[in-house]
Order: sequence, then C-alpha cells, then structure tokens
Amino acid sequence: MSGLRTPEELEAELRRIGAERYHSNHPFHKLLHGGKLHKDQVRAWALNRYCYQRIIPIKDARVLARMEDVEMRRVWRQRIVDHDGEIGDAPDGGLRRWLSLAVGLGFDADYVRSTRGALPATKFACEAYVNYVSRRSLLEAIASSLTEMFSPQIIKDRVSGMLANYDFITPDILRYFTHRLSEAPRDADWALAYVREHARTPDAQETVLDALRFKCDMLWAQLDALYLAYVEPGMIAPGAWRPGEGMARIEAAA
Amino acid sequence: MSGLRTPEELEAELRRIGAERYHSNHPFHKLLHGGKLHKDQVRAWALNRYCYQRIIPIKDARVLARMEDVEMRRVWRQRIVDHDGEIGDAPDGGLRRWLSLAVGLGFDADYVRSTRGALPATKFACEAYVNYVSRRSLLEAIASSLTEMFSPQIIKDRVSGMLANYDFITPDILRYFTHRLSEAPRDADWALAYVREHARTPDAQETVLDALRFKCDMLWAQLDALYLAYVEPGMIAPGAWRPGEGMARIEAAA
Repeated sequence: MSGLRTPEELEAELRRIGAERYHSNHPFHKLLHGGKLHKDQVRAWALNRYCYQRIIPIKDARVLARMEDVEMRRVWRQRIVDHDGEIGDAPDGGLRRWLSLAVGLGFDADYVRSTRGALPATKFACEAYVNYVSRRSLLEAIASSLTEMFSPQIIKDRVSGMLANYDFITPDILRYFTHRLSEAPRDADWALAYVREHARTPDAQETVLDALRFKCDMLWAQLDALYLAYVEPGMIAPGAWRPGEGMARIEAAA
Repeated sequence: MSGLRTPEELEAELRRIGAERYHSNHPFHKLLHGGKLHKDQVRAWALNRYCYQRIIPIKDARVLARMEDVEMRRVWRQRIVDHDGEIGDAPDGGLRRWLSLAVGLGFDADYVRSTRGALPATKFACEAYVNYVSRRSLLEAIASSLTEMFSPQIIKDRVSGMLANYDFITPDILRYFTHRLSEAPRDADWALAYVREHARTPDAQETVLDALRFKCDMLWAQLDALYLAYVEPGMIAPGAWRPGEGMARIEAAA
C-alpha cells in the first residue's frame, strides 16, 4: 500500500484512479455525448462549466506564484496563455471560446460571465480547487492537473457525439475542444514527468494520488449537481438558472 | 430595490429570504422529519453533517480573529464554547454531541471523524463557508450566521418528527438539538441586532442579504448532495460512504 513505487508503478496507479474516477464515467456525460439531453440540459452544462473555465487561469496563476524556478514558470505560463489568449492579440483563449460556446447555445454573454445562474455546488467545487492548489504542496498542485492525462479521449467522444446527435451543435460552437486536444496532452506530459521525478517517498506518492482523487472528485461533483438539478429528479436550487432565463434577446424573441 | 431600508425593513427582507431559501424547505428534510427515510439514509445525513459541525467552531474562530473589540469577542466566543465545550471540563460541546448522534446510529467514531466517507460536495460547501467568513467583511461574516433565526422551528420539527417516526432514534441521540434550542436564538438575536445597527447604507444592506443567501445556498447544497446520493436516483460519488461501511464493530457483527 504505502511502499515506495517505481515511477512506472506510480503512473500505473494514477491511470487506475483515472479509469475509476474520471468524470467520463459519470452518467451525465454519457447522456451528453449520446445525444440524450435536450437543449436546455446542454445549456445548463455550458453555463455551469463556465464557472470551472473561469477559475482555470486563476488556479494556474496561483500555482505559478508558488514556483521559484524561472524555467518551470515559463512552462507553466503557457497554460494561462491558452486560457486567456496572447497579450495584445485579438481576443482569444479558452475562456472566451467557452463563452462563445455558451452564447452559441443562446445565452447572453453577461449573464454567463456573472455566474449568478450557476448552481452553488458548482461554485463551491471550483473554489475548492483554487484553494487546493494554493494551500497544498507544489507537488500536489501540479499533480491535481493530471486529469489532463484522461481528457483527450473524453474530448474526442464529446465532439463526435455532440456533432452527430444535436442539430444545435456546430463545429464552431465546439471550437474550445479542438484547441484542448493539442494543449492537454502537452500539459499532461510535462506534469506527469514532474510528478514521476519528484514524488520520491511513499508519503509524497500518496499525496500525489490523493491530489488526483481530489481533482476527480471536484469534476464529478459538478456533474452530480447538474444531474440532480436538470436531469433527475430535477431539483433546481433556489436562485439557480431555470430554462428561459439569461437568454440573449434574439433568442428570447424567437 | 437598492434604496436604504429601515432596520425593520431589512429584518423583514432577511426573514423573506429565510422563508424562501432556508433548508427547511428542502425535500430531504421533509423526508427526514416525516419518517420517510430508512436507517442508512439517516446515517448518511449524520455522517455528512458531521463535516458541517466540524467546521462551525473553526469558522467562528476565523470570525473571532477579525473582531477588534474585546466585548464583541467575549460575546462571539460563547459560540466556540457551545461547540467545543468549556476548557478543562469533562468532554462536552456540540461537536461531541453530534459525534454521539452518529455513533448512536452505529458508526465508528474514528470513521466519522476522518470525514473520508463524506460526499465531496459536502466538504466543498463547508470549505466555502470557512472561506466566506475569512474573506468577506466582518458584517457579512456575522450576517452569514443569521440562518440561526430560522433554526428553532426546524429543530422542533426534527426532534418531534424523528422521535415519533423512527424506532432507532432516542432523545439521547438527539441531545445535540435540545442544546441548540437555547443557544441558537441567543446567537441569532445578537447577530440580528448587530446587522440592523451596522448595515447603514444600501450597499451594506445588499451585502448582508447576499450573505444570508450564500449561507442558505451552502446548507441547501449539502441536502442536494445527500438527496442525489442516497435518495434519488442513488448516485453515490466514487469513494463516498456506502451502507455497511464505517460501522462500529458491535453493529457490524449484529
């Protein structure tokens, strides 16, 4: 259980945790990719996940602030570029692409940005992630990013499944994911190499495994909240988005 | 909407938020008090709510640390005494009484204390509360305690309903709540008087109302998570408690 693992054993254990706990296993994702959701349920997903997208560059900045080594910071900074866009270029980056996705589904951009329609449970999970990378060791903060190891497959399933199954989904709406297909593996390779090299004691390896479990938990909790509110039994928390709210005027008039 | 309210109008608005959003309205509570849950569902509630009980004296210490006035600190400190017990006396206090409740339902005390079976969403909500009182203004931190205005009624409903409806519930198991019936109104009276006196601008009053909404949200999110996992559709997050786990040996052998 808590003996020292070789780097290969550690990686195998990380992959086992991903196979068991990554949110690709969640019933909500199976419904999403399989075309089983109606448009308002897909909207709820896009609206809530904006909260997660919103905190990614913030959590990456928290991690960046903890790195003493300039070379590490140069590597890690690319994540912030990916999500916020290059300085001075035309508006770009993952966060804006996610906003486009939500707007493509009919939302008013300001409503999405305000996060006031998001489920409280979504916000709490995202906040926990920012706190996690701020308070735990740098090794744990980096290890918590390792869900990227498992994201290319879920993204491929999502893009092909959503394009095939929903007439309101276009390649342009899903542009966020095509970018992530090249970004995520590069990030995951670096983080995995770092963790393999720096988790050199049984205790450090346990913290790494727990970091990945934590990250899987926070992703899972977001889909749990969506499921309860918008799939079954349809219990929407007071104040959270209800179908019809927060739409752009052109959609509201349609 | 954002004009200056009289203290009476502010209090009325706080009571309106409570009437709409306090977790006494949540379907899980209606099932709990109405005798509609089986023993494992009541156990799940006790196990998860331990996470909330656990952070109450911690959040109160965070608030205490922000008070410059010795008289305010002397008043607020009583909350920590209520939950942790008097210094040097026999083990006592609300947190231990909640642990007794969980043990009375069959749990191993160490399992409950570890919080490892609690739902991730429960932990995220509780963490958000500690962060809230640490980062927001002192006025907002105090206002977030105002859910105590509404707790006497829910406690009366809970104690009478659970005693009447469950043969595994005894007055001794529910001892936590009989203490809270005298503690909560005293705390709520002080906090309400403070908020009425110190929320003197429209903006300050809005932050107070938002603080109560936040607190209602974090309580509601805990019941949402219980409902999804243990009532309907019964989706228990990976790693969270499953019936049969974490029982004291005497119960496991029965």
